[in-house]
Amino acid sequence: MPQGGSVVNTDPNCIFCKIVAGQIPAMKVYEGEAILAFLDIGPLAEGHLLIIPKEHAERLEEVNPDVLAQLARQLPRLARAVLSVTQAAGYNLLQNNGRVSGQEVPHVHFHIIPRAAGDGLGYRWLASKYPPGRGEELQKKLLEALG
Amino acid sequence: MPQGGSVVNTDPNCIFCKIVAGQIPAMKVYEGEAILAFLDIGPLAEGHLLIIPKEHAERLEEVNPDVLAQLARQLPRLARAVLSVTQAAGYNLLQNNGRVSGQEVPHVHFHIIPRAAGDGLGYRWLASKYPPGRGEELQKKLLEALG
Repeated sequence: MPQGGSVVNTDPNCIFCKIVAGQIPAMKVYEGEAILAFLDIGPLAEGHLLIIPKEHAERLEEVNPDVLAQLARQLPRLARAVLSVTQAAGYNLLQNNGRVSGQEVPHVHFHIIPRAAGDGLGYRWLASKYPPGRGEELQKKLLEALG
Repeated sequence: MPQGGSVVNTDPNCIFCKIVAGQIPAMKVYEGEAILAFLDIGPLAEGHLLIIPKEHAERLEEVNPDVLAQLARQLPRLARAVLSVTQAAGYNLLQNNGRVSGQEVPHVHFHIIPRAAGDGLGYRWLASKYPPGRGEELQKKLLEALG
């Protein structure tokens, strides 16, 4: 694993920044210039992987798009490795933003969570429907917000 | 929204491929050369967005990394728009692979799910610990698989 370029934004109180800096250990499996992948020490399943940008950012909407692109490019390869090692039938890619969403470490991280039948994991799928016109109204507002 | 380049891989039986081709309607909010974003018609919350590669691929590990990079670059901007329109406190980014993971449409899609306190959503967080040495064993196998 190459030890890539220097990290500009770092938070001295952040556990993931400390892992990036090598100040605390982690079971690393991939390191790129701007990203790092390691095993979650509180796994939901064997092989549960975390992938993070090295620079500190709390939430996805704050991450440099170039860094996110770099991270995304590695996802297929990392997912194939997890599937090959765990023989899992599938997986969830999950990334939480804000305490309300379940985010526990305030440094952006993507989970690859291997799945097996009957594992009790997964997202609580409480789907609804829009009342007539409401979807189109939201679409209009989103188009405006996206300028 | 620009109607970008032609789509090479397409599945005539796939509902998302039909949306990409304009054969069935969708509440689109962003279209790029290789990706499309639209409102989920069975939303878990107001503003629940789907972002897909236009080319057909069932699972993340099959997607062209360049296309994934393009998709990832748009995520911060799309998330900011969803937050601005919905005033949500946070959100989950979720992408399911395989029926065992909860994937219902077999065409890769990323969910942006706005979150609010007490909404009953979120991932079932059944965390465990590795027995001594097991994490390191998996790390070694993953490093080999990533070769």
